[in-house]
Amino acid sequence: MANLSQLMENEVFMAFASYTTIVLSKMMFMSTATAFYRLTRKVFANQEDCAGFGKGENAKKYLRTDDRVERVRRAHLNDLENIVPFLGIGLLYSLSGPDLSTAILHFRLFVGARIYHTIAYLTPLPQPNRALAFFIGYGVTLSMAYRLLKSKLYL
Amino acid sequence: MANLSQLMENEVFMAFASYTTIVLSKMMFMSTATAFYRLTRKVFANQEDCAGFGKGENAKKYLRTDDRVERVRRAHLNDLENIVPFLGIGLLYSLSGPDLSTAILHFRLFVGARIYHTIAYLTPLPQPNRALAFFIGYGVTLSMAYRLLKSKLYL
Amino acid sequence: MANLSQLMENEVFMAFASYTTIVLSKMMFMSTATAFYRLTRKVFANQEDCAGFGKGENAKKYLRTDDRVERVRRAHLNDLENIVPFLGIGLLYSLSGPDLSTAILHFRLFVGARIYHTIAYLTPLPQPNRALAFFIGYGVTLSMAYRLLKSKLYL
Repeated sequence: MANLSQLMENEVFMAFASYTTIVLSKMMFMSTATAFYRLTRKVFANQEDCAGFGKGENAKKYLRTDDRVERVRRAHLNDLENIVPFLGIGLLYSLSGPDLSTAILHFRLFVGARIYHTIAYLTPLPQPNRALAFFIGYGVTLSMAYRLLKSKLYL
Repeated sequence: MANLSQLMENEVFMAFASYTTIVLSKMMFMSTATAFYRLTRKVFANQEDCAGFGKGENAKKYLRTDDRVERVRRAHLNDLENIVPFLGIGLLYSLSGPDLSTAILHFRLFVGARIYHTIAYLTPLPQPNRALAFFIGYGVTLSMAYRLLKSKLYL
Repeated sequence: MANLSQLMENEVFMAFASYTTIVLSKMMFMSTATAFYRLTRKVFANQEDCAGFGKGENAKKYLRTDDRVERVRRAHLNDLENIVPFLGIGLLYSLSGPDLSTAILHFRLFVGARIYHTIAYLTPLPQPNRALAFFIGYGVTLSMAYRLLKSKLYL
C-alpha cells in the first residue's frame, strides 16, 4: 500500500480530493432542496408519492409541476453538467503534476463559482450573476483540459 | 508499471472498482429500459425516430410523452444525481486508506440501495420504499465524504 | 511524487486521460450550444434571463420551450448518461493493466461514436445513425466493464 499513501501525501491530489468532496456534497444538497420544495408545496411527479395526501382522484391533483421545484431541478442538472467534466478533467489534471498554487487556484475558483451559481439560481439574482458564475466554472475546467492536453497528449 | 499493479492489489480499491462497475452497469440498463418502453409504446421525442412508423403527419402522432417512459427517465436521472457523487467521493475515499471491512460495508449498502431504488421506482412500490432506498445511498455517500474530509482536509 | 509521475508514464493511462479530456470537452460544448440557441431564438427557462428583452409581461412571452433547444438538451443529457459510466469504468479499466492497443481501440471507438452521436442528433440525421452511434459507445463501455469484472472481481 506504499503507493496509495504516497498518492494521498501528494498535496495537489489532496487538495483536489478536498475541493471535489465539497462541491459534490453541495450538489447532493440540491436533492434535499428538491425534496423540501416538493413536500412543502405538495408538488409531486409520481402517484405513489402523494398517496399520503389523499385517496384516488383527490391525490392526483398533486401531480403537477411548480416553478420553484423546476428551478431547483434545473440548477441541479446544470451542476451535473458542469461538475462531471470537472471531476474527470480535474482528476487527470491533478495526476499530471501541475504546480500546487496554480492547481489550488483552479479548484478554489471552480468551487466558489459553483456555490455562487447555486445562490444566483435559487435566490434568483438578476443576470449576469448566474451567467458569470457559470462561465468562471466553465473556463476553469477548459483551462485544466488545455494544460492536460498540452503536456500529456497521447492519442 | 509497478505502482499500477500495486494499486489493483489494494483490496479496498479492487472492491471499489467491482462495486462501481456493477452500479454503473445497472445505471446503463436504464437506457435500454427507456428504449424498450419507447419502442413498445411508440412514444418518441424526435421526429426522425418515428419515421419508420408512418409518413409526415401520420408519424407526428408518436411525438408525445408517456407516464411509463417519463418514470424510467426520472429513475435514470436520479441514478445520475446520486451515482456521480458516489463515483467521485468513493474513489477518493478508497485512496485515503480506510478500513477494508468498513469500506466494503459502505459500497455494499450503496449498491444494494440503488438497485432497490430502481425496483421501487419502476414497479412502483408504495412509499416510503423509494425514499428509504434514496436516503440509504445518500447517507453512505455523506459518510464517506465526512471520513474523507475529517482525515485529509487540505484547502 | 515518484508514483504519480509513474502513473502518467503509463501509456494506457495517458491515452485514457487524453480521450477522456476530449470527450468531456465535447460534452461541455453542448452547454454553449444550448446557450446559443436560447439567445438566438429567445427561448428561456428563467424569468431573470429574459429581463433584458422587455419588462414584466412583455418579457414573459420568452418563457417557452423550443424544439431546437430541447433537442440540444436531450443530446446533452444522453451524453451525461453515457459519458459518466465511461469515465468510471474506463478509469478502473485503465488501471487494471489492459493491453495497450486493445485499450486504445476502446477509447477511440467510444470517442468517435459519441462525436458521431452528437452530429446525428443535432443535424438531425435519419435513424439508425444516432441509434448506431449510441450502441457502439454503449458496447464499448460494457466491454470494458466485462473485462474489468472478469479479471478483478472482488466483492
